[in-house]
Amino acid sequence: MALSARNRLTGEVTSIETSGPTAEVTVETEGGETAAAVITTDSVDRLGLSEGETVDAVIKATDVMVRNN
Amino acid sequence: MALSARNRLTGEVTSIETSGPTAEVTVETEGGETAAAVITTDSVDRLGLSEGETVDAVIKATDVMVRNN
Amino acid sequence: MALSARNRLTGEVTSIETSGPTAEVTVETEGGETAAAVITTDSVDRLGLSEGETVDAVIKATDVMVRNN
Amino acid sequence: MALSARNRLTGEVTSIETSGPTAEVTVETEGGETAAAVITTDSVDRLGLSEGETVDAVIKATDVMVRNN
Amino acid sequence: MALSARNRLTGEVTSIETSGPTAEVTVETEGGETAAAVITTDSVDRLGLSEGETVDAVIKATDVMVRNN
Amino acid sequence: MALSARNRLTGEVTSIETSGPTAEVTVETEGGETAAAVITTDSVDRLGLSEGETVDAVIKATDVMVRNN
Repeated sequence: MALSARNRLTGEVTSIETSGPTAEVTVETEGGETAAAVITTDSVDRLGLSEGETVDAVIKATDVMVRNN
Repeated sequence: MALSARNRLTGEVTSIETSGPTAEVTVETEGGETAAAVITTDSVDRLGLSEGETVDAVIKATDVMVRNN
Repeated sequence: MALSARNRLTGEVTSIETSGPTAEVTVETEGGETAAAVITTDSVDRLGLSEGETVDAVIKATDVMVRNN
Repeated sequence: MALSARNRLTGEVTSIETSGPTAEVTVETEGGETAAAVITTDSVDRLGLSEGETVDAVIKATDVMVRNN
Repeated sequence: MALSARNRLTGEVTSIETSGPTAEVTVETEGGETAAAVITTDSVDRLGLSEGETVDAVIKATDVMVRNN
Repeated sequence: MALSARNRLTGEVTSIETSGPTAEVTVETEGGETAAAVITTDSVDRLGLSEGETVDAVIKATDVMVRNN
């Protein structure tokens, strides 16, 4: 399956913090980048996410901003 | 200045494709990650973005999804 | 593969309108719902999207609003 | 009143799960589609949302992704 | 009708720049705030938006970031 | 530093409501506009946000909708 959202960061789940309907999942790539995702707790359960697992952080291009100096 | 959006990927602008009010900016990190951003052409001009420049791709945690196998 | 974005509408691509870096894709479900997606032209090409094809429109729960009377 | 966000799914509120500042609202259409929305608890209160009520789930086209096989 | 998206800025449409499927609409409030919206050209047409008209710029709370010094 | 997200509302933090991984921050401008932001609690801590402080509410143009009568 292919998804239109083009940005992917492949890494390991290093933490899952759940509170009511929302959860925060942290993913660290081999290159040392960190991505924090706020997703629903239902999605954490449905995907069976666990720490140490390899996942993709996926981001739509319209949700990316650019900052310079 | 500090921004609440937590996710940042620092890299080099490798392409800027502009078309009317929107533009697509591609950023490549040292570790080999690529981020595509769709921003307004006004922002490309206001920031004076140019290829080869070092920038941050910035993403709000609520805009990050997680995918596994 | 499983994705944290929970909302999916399965339907047929009824139109693809491309203009520079962005494209608008319309999907119609069997039940008569219509979903309009603005994605990058690169994604249209990468997925090889064509009219008449069956696809999923996918939406993150934090991007859904509710309206009542 | 008319809103620029083009995607609407009309259906019945089948559940409201509230936790602190955020709530998850589930809407089911007559055709059997389900939409999950994460909105603020303030909005649940302000709209006076209740289970069984008919509402629209509303989504901006830039927030819709497309997935195929 | 009431919408869960809580943030509204009421002002006058001061410009509409259209290019293919997307358009940029600028709204200025009485208090001097400016809001730029990228919406679909279809929505500009459907709403019959015109310069000088009074509209609301509407934003979901999960799409707002905070920045300090 | 300059950020591509073009919309800014400068104002005072009038409330911070935290619950687990998410928090709601309310900002009021001098002109009387109010902006509600749902951000992560980690960001509230990292920025050291406090009531009475002057901040910017920042919003990407693709996240702004338009509504008229």
